[in-house]
Amino acid sequence: MKGYVFHGPGQSAWEEIPDPAIREATDAIVRVDAVTICGTDLHILKGDVPEVRPGTVLGHEAVGEIVEVGGEVRTVRPGDRVLVSCISACGRCRFCREAMYGQCRGGGGWILGHLIDGTQAEYVRVPYADLSVHPLPGAVSSEDAVLLADIFPTSYEVGVLNGGVRPGDTVVVVGAGPVGLAAVATARLFAPSRIVAVDVAASRLEAARKLGAETVADAREAPEELVADLTEGLGADVVIEAVGVPETFELCTRMVRPGGHVANVGVHGKPATLHLEDLWIKNVTITTGLVDTHSTPTLLRMAAAGRLPTGQLITHTFPLDSMQEAYDVFGNAAETGALKVVLGGQRHDSVAVPAQQR
Amino acid sequence: MKGYVFHGPGQSAWEEIPDPAIREATDAIVRVDAVTICGTDLHILKGDVPEVRPGTVLGHEAVGEIVEVGGEVRTVRPGDRVLVSCISACGRCRFCREAMYGQCRGGGGWILGHLIDGTQAEYVRVPYADLSVHPLPGAVSSEDAVLLADIFPTSYEVGVLNGGVRPGDTVVVVGAGPVGLAAVATARLFAPSRIVAVDVAASRLEAARKLGAETVADAREAPEELVADLTEGLGADVVIEAVGVPETFELCTRMVRPGGHVANVGVHGKPATLHLEDLWIKNVTITTGLVDTHSTPTLLRMAAAGRLPTGQLITHTFPLDSMQEAYDVFGNAAETGALKVVLGGQRHDSVAVPAQQR
Amino acid sequence: MKGYVFHGPGQSAWEEIPDPAIREATDAIVRVDAVTICGTDLHILKGDVPEVRPGTVLGHEAVGEIVEVGGEVRTVRPGDRVLVSCISACGRCRFCREAMYGQCRGGGGWILGHLIDGTQAEYVRVPYADLSVHPLPGAVSSEDAVLLADIFPTSYEVGVLNGGVRPGDTVVVVGAGPVGLAAVATARLFAPSRIVAVDVAASRLEAARKLGAETVADAREAPEELVADLTEGLGADVVIEAVGVPETFELCTRMVRPGGHVANVGVHGKPATLHLEDLWIKNVTITTGLVDTHSTPTLLRMAAAGRLPTGQLITHTFPLDSMQEAYDVFGNAAETGALKVVLGGQRHDSVAVPAQQR
Amino acid sequence: MKGYVFHGPGQSAWEEIPDPAIREATDAIVRVDAVTICGTDLHILKGDVPEVRPGTVLGHEAVGEIVEVGGEVRTVRPGDRVLVSCISACGRCRFCREAMYGQCRGGGGWILGHLIDGTQAEYVRVPYADLSVHPLPGAVSSEDAVLLADIFPTSYEVGVLNGGVRPGDTVVVVGAGPVGLAAVATARLFAPSRIVAVDVAASRLEAARKLGAETVADAREAPEELVADLTEGLGADVVIEAVGVPETFELCTRMVRPGGHVANVGVHGKPATLHLEDLWIKNVTITTGLVDTHSTPTLLRMAAAGRLPTGQLITHTFPLDSMQEAYDVFGNAAETGALKVVLGGQRHDSVAVPAQQR
Repeated sequence: MKGYVFHGPGQSAWEEIPDPAIREATDAIVRVDAVTICGTDLHILKGDVPEVRPGTVLGHEAVGEIVEVGGEVRTVRPGDRVLVSCISACGRCRFCREAMYGQCRGGGGWILGHLIDGTQAEYVRVPYADLSVHPLPGAVSSEDAVLLADIFPTSYEVGVLNGGVRPGDTVVVVGAGPVGLAAVATARLFAPSRIVAVDVAASRLEAARKLGAETVADAREAPEELVADLTEGLGADVVIEAVGVPETFELCTRMVRPGGHVANVGVHGKPATLHLEDLWIKNVTITTGLVDTHSTPTLLRMAAAGRLPTGQLITHTFPLDSMQEAYDVFGNAAETGALKVVLGGQRHDSVAVPAQQR
Repeated sequence: MKGYVFHGPGQSAWEEIPDPAIREATDAIVRVDAVTICGTDLHILKGDVPEVRPGTVLGHEAVGEIVEVGGEVRTVRPGDRVLVSCISACGRCRFCREAMYGQCRGGGGWILGHLIDGTQAEYVRVPYADLSVHPLPGAVSSEDAVLLADIFPTSYEVGVLNGGVRPGDTVVVVGAGPVGLAAVATARLFAPSRIVAVDVAASRLEAARKLGAETVADAREAPEELVADLTEGLGADVVIEAVGVPETFELCTRMVRPGGHVANVGVHGKPATLHLEDLWIKNVTITTGLVDTHSTPTLLRMAAAGRLPTGQLITHTFPLDSMQEAYDVFGNAAETGALKVVLGGQRHDSVAVPAQQR
Repeated sequence: MKGYVFHGPGQSAWEEIPDPAIREATDAIVRVDAVTICGTDLHILKGDVPEVRPGTVLGHEAVGEIVEVGGEVRTVRPGDRVLVSCISACGRCRFCREAMYGQCRGGGGWILGHLIDGTQAEYVRVPYADLSVHPLPGAVSSEDAVLLADIFPTSYEVGVLNGGVRPGDTVVVVGAGPVGLAAVATARLFAPSRIVAVDVAASRLEAARKLGAETVADAREAPEELVADLTEGLGADVVIEAVGVPETFELCTRMVRPGGHVANVGVHGKPATLHLEDLWIKNVTITTGLVDTHSTPTLLRMAAAGRLPTGQLITHTFPLDSMQEAYDVFGNAAETGALKVVLGGQRHDSVAVPAQQR
Repeated sequence: MKGYVFHGPGQSAWEEIPDPAIREATDAIVRVDAVTICGTDLHILKGDVPEVRPGTVLGHEAVGEIVEVGGEVRTVRPGDRVLVSCISACGRCRFCREAMYGQCRGGGGWILGHLIDGTQAEYVRVPYADLSVHPLPGAVSSEDAVLLADIFPTSYEVGVLNGGVRPGDTVVVVGAGPVGLAAVATARLFAPSRIVAVDVAASRLEAARKLGAETVADAREAPEELVADLTEGLGADVVIEAVGVPETFELCTRMVRPGGHVANVGVHGKPATLHLEDLWIKNVTITTGLVDTHSTPTLLRMAAAGRLPTGQLITHTFPLDSMQEAYDVFGNAAETGALKVVLGGQRHDSVAVPAQQR
């Protein structure tokens, strides 16, 4: 089969590789119908994630069809259309027992396209299939569903649920890239009074507005003053960090009200400064986290009911074998305006989701 | 009457001042029976808290008797023995309505000995008396009760409750000064499996052990390794910061397990470094806060039932007019071994709490 | 002034009575602009609420303008347009300190039109004004706002919040009268997957559908089977009882899934049968409650942002002095189709909310 | 091997039966070291649990040693000393994913000694071993540990956690049989101010007192008046029902304060009357539930630290082959004073837990 293989920093290719095979009785083999590229994949290509060994197939998000299962897989079987989650779960360790699958100590967690071969290929082996794939309702197109493999549960769990968004809240989302936009979309599930999106790119702010942000702000123009004005000087109830650099994290801690929450979603490579001389007295809660994907069944139900605007985040689609072109477009988002690119998926979509409904 | 007056950095005296009088219909005047000194008072004396104007009577903790009330005070009356809380509460603002009294926007919050005259005097005017003093059960001595004006609710609310201590947890308390020791004592209310106290002073670690810390560790001897050993490498469920310097805060963030909590109680004067490059993926919750004293009625009930070892924190007692001597002893804790010093209180104690029961 | 006075079972009249006056320093006098009638008022008229003494002005919901305040009222002043809450709060008792105002032990709770003169009059005295009236944002019409005095916080707090509605849930609301319809509307704030409304009146089910119930069911046609079909046999996540008779409560307990919630909102006059022989093993949570109105500020913010469909519940409007006619229409809902009737309110509405925006 | 086999109502025997064998790759075979008898087993013998087929080995609580595992068991291996939980868990269904194992839809839940052969035998086959047995810390004796198979997690989860016991609470436990006594013991983990135990047997009340109930009350002498006196007329914060008949449940609902919790633990065979005409206005929460055993790892940690007084509940011990005699003693508790009887276990105990430490 073909797959997109990492060969060390700056080196990768869509190339012929052996088909995956069942290794454990809890494995499943999935034929990939739709796949997407994550910002993390770009980091791997740059060499920022050293535990990814050369020779690894990248990708941790997919929709596809089960073609084979090991003897102990009980909840899915060949022919089932499934979502492959970015997180695998052994289901037995102390963290899995608390639905904290991202912290799995039994061989799961984020392994696809990281510690083992991933989803950017024609077929993928998924360990612990019972807890790591999700049967798909027929009403959800593959293109829409693939966004539920990572960015929607990430923004929902690590941003919206950790942040404790409540009806009537003022919510600020810093960073209107794909994850930040998904945070805008999923924060709306809790009926906040106002969502403020902050970014430097006008096109992303425009996307945020379409997804439901009542207010948008240029990150370079003192957004904390805008937030103070909107909240009688108090600050926002919930601030979601969806960038991953020290400056944006520190901005978040300046925009939160006493008693409020800062939910960090961004992937950080450097430490930030925590202004405890101001914050110690403010009753602030700061959370971090890797997605657990415990919300994926709920989000799938919402998507099937048409309640998640997943499609609005997809700016480009490609056939599966245009992987390199897709990487080029996604990796150059400032020029291409790419949010999420989806490869494959057309077969199913062509029947289920006419373009005009998008 | 006499009171302890701040006259600017490094200048203060126990001196004759006018008696306080009712100003608002919601005020009460309390004759002070017992009072204590807080580390914050030392900071004020050094000039670290510039909003304290010269001429202010210090102190925000007291037990005494109501001698006069304004026309709108409904829940206490002259003759009642009360605890004067470090936090006053207007009861009307949005924060008071959520029992977040420390953040009161209606003229309360931490005002005694800060923005208005405080408790280190023979009499004190307490605004918003209905929500700012607590009737005392007869079974609680004044000496014991005065520790419930600040350090017990502070350590319980900002440390133990914010940290979410649960039965079976491993809890680390960094800093075994009075607030840290009260955190050890109140963490025990939730039956953790093990409390680890960390400090540099052997005497304080010994006090922690007596209050229920199963394990004590010298802060200079890699306590994070000890905690890792005790937790199969995972880290502690809850880590409580009770010092207030960047190093101890950062130590806390290295000792917490994935999914765990860091509850900051310490008063910080400088920023700390938050190692988001490690923490972003760890599902960590960090909280800060000023005490709200919403737990004071509960803690009083516990104290009346003999469930709080308040007395163990009192190392020195003085008559009320030995205020300067008490400050000297408390301010020189490294040599005197002072934890909490209590002034006054003997009258009531001599009847209610014979020494041998201590 | 004129007011609607209860003179004993079956006897009441809109008649001349003395103007109310300030009695306590915490009182306010409100000139009533808009008022509504509650099902409870009908019960009082029938003699079902014996603690209401003859001579009492009825009504516990109003919007109006502050015309006078006592000396201790600090958060509102004459000229302010306010919502008069159905619940008054002393702000000092243990229940008020936990925002459980409905259980106030300090002279508040449900007192208006119950233990003291109420709102169905030209003026009303409101005790504990600081915590018992809410300043109104200009964007909310009096007609809309008056529904936030009782039925919206009741359905939201006692139904939706107590029931713990979450995104993706299946929610059943039994009873599509005004409170049940408000439960449908406020359950939507948490983005459930599906709301099922159950009633016997086709017109009310149609109203439920317009407010967002995806499914409606005739209570006489085995709605538990429908709910089972919709949920793969499991039952609903949350069931809200909004009728108040044993049969509907028991129906609710048959429709809830293992691990689900039954939130009782209905006012009951008789005991129900609790089938513990079935329920003991099902991990079910059942809640009851009187509204506390702690959510009123949030709901007002939502209403100001246009997020609450209050207007859809208003079927009839009258001038204030047509009180008897309004009672006749509301009391005969089966024929008139009345949901909520609003008296007064037109003045403000004529400016702020043109009819075509309704 | 030998096992205790149910042959229909009133008929049972300790008799020779075939050894169990691995059937599924997720099974384990455990050699039983200690086992106990549950009140439910007596109900089965009487014929009250019709789904138990004649020929079934009874018992759902055991401690023993793994002697064989299926190919997919990953967390335990032969030689491991384990606790066999009363609840088995598939780990894959929606309920197991939320740690609601008691409601497992994948073949788990309460199956041992109910739908498949149980633990009252020399060997037992345990399905889904990874999630259904718990490795035992060496510090816990088998006799103590076997009480953690059912009654301790039952009383803790369904009583104490569902009831939301908090420091300072007044907690009433109705029924001082084994489960009620375990509720007294585990409620203490949250430092309530006072636990009141209610029963009709003086010996059980005495046992409750030894386990930490400050107050005991005869159920026939108006315990609700006693509770009212102790709580200034308000009622208890948490009331735990541990009997299972309508009268005791109804008593619980009369003893709870506004805003309080009634946690039903008792197994009921008949409906109760729910006095909604009183309760609708009281903000009461009522919970029911089958144990999930999600707390078992925590309880084992507590037991290993010597924090659970399990031993105090054991009144009689027998060798394993005295099963019939043990049933006779346990089934006639009114005369024998039996609380929990334990069979086997002596081997390990003789080394680890000298009698004088009990």
